[in-house]
Amino acid sequence: MSDTNVSASPSRRRFLATASGLVAAGVASPVLAQDAKIDAKALPPNVADWSKALGEGVVAHPYGSPSKFEKHVIRRDVEWLTASRESSVSFTPLHELDGIITPNGLCFERHHSGVAEVAPQDYRLMIHGLVERPMIFTFDDLKRFPRVNRIYFLECAANSGMEWRGAQLNGCQYTHGMVHCVEYTGVPLKVLLAESGIKPSAKWVLAEGADAAAMTRSIPLSKILDDCLVAYRMNGEMLRPENGYPARLVVPGWEGNMWVKWLRRLKLGDEPWETREETSKYTDLLADGKARKHTFVMDAKSIITSPSPQAPIKGKGFTVISGLAWSGRGKVKRVDVSVDGGRNWREATIDGLVLDKACVRFYAQTQWNGEPWLLQSRVIDETGYVQPSKDDLRKIRGVNSIYHNNGIQTYAVKPDGEVENVEVS
Amino acid sequence: MSDTNVSASPSRRRFLATASGLVAAGVASPVLAQDAKIDAKALPPNVADWSKALGEGVVAHPYGSPSKFEKHVIRRDVEWLTASRESSVSFTPLHELDGIITPNGLCFERHHSGVAEVAPQDYRLMIHGLVERPMIFTFDDLKRFPRVNRIYFLECAANSGMEWRGAQLNGCQYTHGMVHCVEYTGVPLKVLLAESGIKPSAKWVLAEGADAAAMTRSIPLSKILDDCLVAYRMNGEMLRPENGYPARLVVPGWEGNMWVKWLRRLKLGDEPWETREETSKYTDLLADGKARKHTFVMDAKSIITSPSPQAPIKGKGFTVISGLAWSGRGKVKRVDVSVDGGRNWREATIDGLVLDKACVRFYAQTQWNGEPWLLQSRVIDETGYVQPSKDDLRKIRGVNSIYHNNGIQTYAVKPDGEVENVEVS
Repeated sequence: MSDTNVSASPSRRRFLATASGLVAAGVASPVLAQDAKIDAKALPPNVADWSKALGEGVVAHPYGSPSKFEKHVIRRDVEWLTASRESSVSFTPLHELDGIITPNGLCFERHHSGVAEVAPQDYRLMIHGLVERPMIFTFDDLKRFPRVNRIYFLECAANSGMEWRGAQLNGCQYTHGMVHCVEYTGVPLKVLLAESGIKPSAKWVLAEGADAAAMTRSIPLSKILDDCLVAYRMNGEMLRPENGYPARLVVPGWEGNMWVKWLRRLKLGDEPWETREETSKYTDLLADGKARKHTFVMDAKSIITSPSPQAPIKGKGFTVISGLAWSGRGKVKRVDVSVDGGRNWREATIDGLVLDKACVRFYAQTQWNGEPWLLQSRVIDETGYVQPSKDDLRKIRGVNSIYHNNGIQTYAVKPDGEVENVEVS
Repeated sequence: MSDTNVSASPSRRRFLATASGLVAAGVASPVLAQDAKIDAKALPPNVADWSKALGEGVVAHPYGSPSKFEKHVIRRDVEWLTASRESSVSFTPLHELDGIITPNGLCFERHHSGVAEVAPQDYRLMIHGLVERPMIFTFDDLKRFPRVNRIYFLECAANSGMEWRGAQLNGCQYTHGMVHCVEYTGVPLKVLLAESGIKPSAKWVLAEGADAAAMTRSIPLSKILDDCLVAYRMNGEMLRPENGYPARLVVPGWEGNMWVKWLRRLKLGDEPWETREETSKYTDLLADGKARKHTFVMDAKSIITSPSPQAPIKGKGFTVISGLAWSGRGKVKRVDVSVDGGRNWREATIDGLVLDKACVRFYAQTQWNGEPWLLQSRVIDETGYVQPSKDDLRKIRGVNSIYHNNGIQTYAVKPDGEVENVEVS
């Protein structure tokens, strides 16, 4: 990216004041008054209707909801993508969010048999297999344990999966919306397993969900003891039903399918179980017919959320490019942005918290005056891993898989500010 | 606090397995089966009803909600506290939360004329007074600016206000629930004021809300330029109506009343305006009839959220004491816990993030076997400020005020595990 295209130059400030639609003028500004979209009666120093009457009182909504003006900010699905909504996915509206925390009501869903409606008083978690003392915990038991609070991203292994064979879905909600980032509260599994004891021969843990799919995955014991949690809260409150209420596994940095929801059972064993979800599914079918399996870690990935197909550029001039980046291997180190399809790159600013295995928010300040852009971002994590292009991924993986597509996304920005998901070679 | 009372000793683990209600036994455990409260059909390895049928599919709730089993986790008010619900307060259910993030639906409300229902397309923010170029920004203008993401606590100056004259309200939701902590996204005011320019004589800023109360406060320009934001998002999504949608002031560490909601106007001047909300209200009437005013900073404070009157101890044995602490002067450095009314103190563990002017979560692991406790916490911030006892505060401030009560809270824990808000001298 040339400095001509992306610039945080000192001239930005004057530009904003003169050319971006912001008005430098007297209070009763004739420039504003001439704008057909503006109702002069609503302007300061005039008094709008909402300043003239009492509004709703407290606890009108004992559990609050978004403004009626934000009804479009919702999870959405793609009906043709799956055969039924019980085994389907809904997507986080990334283009409508900023910062790193995802509000609970907008966290994407991925179910294999719909949402199991688990009554907490009847919830049980069994720990058995190669343990010294098989145990069953009630939910009240779980809540008595020491717990920790950690902000982590969770990404479905199939996020961006439709894009292996080229640009399919128009909008980062659909191409990248199977990711969210919340603060979890949970009991470290090393604490729970200290209760049951671990037999020396144990090397793997089978995690099973209480949904009708009995979602079941094998997880190395070393990972379980390293940083996995049995979580029962997200962003302070209890897990939402669609996210595993009352308790789910948290497997930081690893594919979302392993974060078993409505967690029912943990069995310790000496080898992986080779369940359906780690053989016929959640493996990457390569061009030669062999499959990669146990592809647990989610490689570093980034996505520009604004501008994007669902969030076009509304006016020429000063523009903030905004996006999310994450890595399953640790912390994000750097994010670059390109407006020419990856020929030139410029380092973006990472704002706010940079946490292990959590999303970061990045920004790049620039000018856009109607020229066509091929907009991209790429992340580099603390291990030095550089997010690859989709073509580089395809050279190695082929196009049979639906999982682990962390290739660089390209947007075509058109002269009218509209944005389209495109492929570049 | 003696080591006998609060102990993280190595024996904890065995204790949990044998005496806390957790069951060390075979899978088909007769101990569990004999528990009258347990439905054997719901236990692993038996299969519960929710494992036998498909649940709700995706986007059944395009914007999600808590579980139907969590309907009790809501904001609540105290009807006798105020004359009307339009000028009243609802309280965050701190005893039902963990971690540091407050979910948006549970953030306390404080309104002076109810919730102003502001249409974003008609929203305007005027900046005028001692500026070079008076300006009016639309909401679309605001969203084009560079922004930052910061996690901050927000505490109403009147939080714990009823407690000046002794224990009044039973439950930390009511005594301390006028605090929340979220991730804000907003435009630094130094960026907005660079657009308008600042005349050299400007020293103060008047912030006015668009509600019918026209909530109006004077804020030193130095604070405004230091770290204040015009925020339009909380926890990623747009502000909730009750929290100032579409835009509010963020005044980190300072009393909540200054975080003007539905922000309509910022006027720069050379002295404070002495509005109603900084003279007859939001000042501390001392015993001699004089009032402290411009008491902007929220001093360091802590509260144990569990156990607490609304979250009694359910069983003897291993117990985790959990709470929140914060300081308007910067970071929390240490939190101590006492079970004997402040005679002995023991350092608690601060878990997770320790951020400037944000809540921290603290825990203390202990044993409780039915003995009476006088449970307290006290915070020390990075400036060395130590949270005072309520009596120490009263000696200086008297009991006329309803603001800035950051004194140490005391709970009596009774032999049956019930907890009561009490006073100690």
